[in-house]
Amino acid sequence: MTLPSHGSNPHYVYQSARIEKPDRVIDFSVNVNPFGAPTIIRERWQSWFSYVEDYPDPLASELKQKLSILNDIQEDCLLIGNGGAELITLVAQFLRGKRILIIQPSFSEYEQACFAQNCCVEHHVLQEGNWALGLNELLPKVKLFDGIFLCTPNNPTGVVYDCQAVMELVQEGKREGCYIIIDEAFYDFTTDNHSYINLIKQYPNLIILRSLTKMFAIAGLRLGYGAANPSVMEKLAALKPHWSVNAIAMKAGLECILQDSYIQHTKQHIADERKRLELVYQSNGFQMSKSEVNFYLLKDPQLEDAAPLFHFLLKKGIVPRHTMNFPGLNGRWLRFAVKKKKENNLLMEALLEWKKYN
Amino acid sequence: MTLPSHGSNPHYVYQSARIEKPDRVIDFSVNVNPFGAPTIIRERWQSWFSYVEDYPDPLASELKQKLSILNDIQEDCLLIGNGGAELITLVAQFLRGKRILIIQPSFSEYEQACFAQNCCVEHHVLQEGNWALGLNELLPKVKLFDGIFLCTPNNPTGVVYDCQAVMELVQEGKREGCYIIIDEAFYDFTTDNHSYINLIKQYPNLIILRSLTKMFAIAGLRLGYGAANPSVMEKLAALKPHWSVNAIAMKAGLECILQDSYIQHTKQHIADERKRLELVYQSNGFQMSKSEVNFYLLKDPQLEDAAPLFHFLLKKGIVPRHTMNFPGLNGRWLRFAVKKKKENNLLMEALLEWKKYN
Repeated sequence: MTLPSHGSNPHYVYQSARIEKPDRVIDFSVNVNPFGAPTIIRERWQSWFSYVEDYPDPLASELKQKLSILNDIQEDCLLIGNGGAELITLVAQFLRGKRILIIQPSFSEYEQACFAQNCCVEHHVLQEGNWALGLNELLPKVKLFDGIFLCTPNNPTGVVYDCQAVMELVQEGKREGCYIIIDEAFYDFTTDNHSYINLIKQYPNLIILRSLTKMFAIAGLRLGYGAANPSVMEKLAALKPHWSVNAIAMKAGLECILQDSYIQHTKQHIADERKRLELVYQSNGFQMSKSEVNFYLLKDPQLEDAAPLFHFLLKKGIVPRHTMNFPGLNGRWLRFAVKKKKENNLLMEALLEWKKYN
Repeated sequence: MTLPSHGSNPHYVYQSARIEKPDRVIDFSVNVNPFGAPTIIRERWQSWFSYVEDYPDPLASELKQKLSILNDIQEDCLLIGNGGAELITLVAQFLRGKRILIIQPSFSEYEQACFAQNCCVEHHVLQEGNWALGLNELLPKVKLFDGIFLCTPNNPTGVVYDCQAVMELVQEGKREGCYIIIDEAFYDFTTDNHSYINLIKQYPNLIILRSLTKMFAIAGLRLGYGAANPSVMEKLAALKPHWSVNAIAMKAGLECILQDSYIQHTKQHIADERKRLELVYQSNGFQMSKSEVNFYLLKDPQLEDAAPLFHFLLKKGIVPRHTMNFPGLNGRWLRFAVKKKKENNLLMEALLEWKKYN
């Protein structure tokens, strides 16, 4: 059974698991805002049809300008991409054939993209449970690599790495000529929105990746951006296909970044629901990762491999994200998105039912 | 004055030409269907909103299956891309650092993409006027290169290269281990729809690029595909960002490929209008390329450089495509899309006015 390498598109999971897909499924494998896209996107949708016919602005100038103001960084430090995934492949191309370290467990696209570019990829696997950065082991490795991928808040654990530790890593990277790529795809789900984006001014070795598809639930449109020193950005831009960002994604992006109350409402909901889930999981013998975002890892400590629980849930129409392709997790945990109250309740019910008989 | 490297987005042309952009402009620099997107796209648009929130199918399975049937080739010979431009960058990555020949004049993205991948790029510049392939000079060069880009029907001339000559090039490529990349972005605007796509079965050195954004005027959505031997396609797919094709483009693509009468209607209109324009141009001392598609090159033989005519038209709100970045044209010609009757009339009027005073 080779399971899909990502969440979403649950029919592929059912296919590989050889389980008949129920008519209705709840997809906990996809980490986007449970409230869906902001209302304004729906309201404007019809009017955006007129942007279908002509070529999009290849420079995404308007969105770039707005993001520049929002993040207080120069426009030439920014590159708008066809989702975070495109930016990852551009960074991998930029570091083609180099020595890359990936701090694991983490988003599998870093490895895929680096493999495709003939990089020599190694993993720094964090201790399961707290997933602390472990600088004593990590810092001495920095000089051995040309680039290090770090995802914080981390996908799949939801853990936010210690800020001081990340800073030491970025500084060591600068000293040793190693690019530190920080993927902040989920930074806007945390309570304090902590980000490293403003450090690009002092650290030419720092590359920040951002996504607009998670918070704003526009994953179908594809939109993300990168921030780094202008000399790095220029090189990434040269590798990018012309017009890679479609016109509708740009229009949506311009509206999304204005949605402050939607963001606040989402963050509050996520924090409340995560707390509620945590209490139930704790009192029923499940282990949960210390997530600060809209997804978390869950483990039944009595299972060495979560496959039986995974199948149990799939049959009930609940789709978790397996963790078999995350080094350091190897299928022991399952990842779930924090969804709306009703859906989270259904998940908890199913998990309690599992516990009753296992 | 550095003009934009592509048509469309006319504000950039006015900016670089330092001409104030009139309130209303007609953009002849963009080569998409003058009738706009098929009606069905507008009708379905609202219902596609529901595909915004979740991730698109990374394999584009449904569209791939349909295109496989339509083109009578296996699914594993196909790769769906984020517009033809993405496929060009993937091919360039695949041929990274290799010796590339581009048959010119041609679409400038081949050169850009190959430069970005450290290819050693040379040009085979065809004789201005008839732009015949010139096999006597071309065939002996094949063994010197790892890849040759050929665009037929050609952008920017609109000329369809002699089929027998192209076949000899493809065969020589096979003998000499040279990939022949045929960009068929505009093949469906010609009367006979002639294509080389079915040759991929016998020629593992052949790569076909197709676009869905020109005939179906969905350039804002980005959609194209490539066809080649499965072993080539697998390598290109590994280089592609996950989810690079957005969900709306896929939905639109599935509808577009069913629009037979829309295609027929478009082709007839283009052929009729091109003929009508040709007669007027011929009888008024303009030189026009022997185009078989929805755009053509135009030249005032009295001008060594078309810049004065270019500026004259820009001031009138008529936006041609300059040819300064096409080797072999170097700004002597202007490219115009074949648009609707009314717009073509306005262009002809403006050109006749130009002739009166120049």
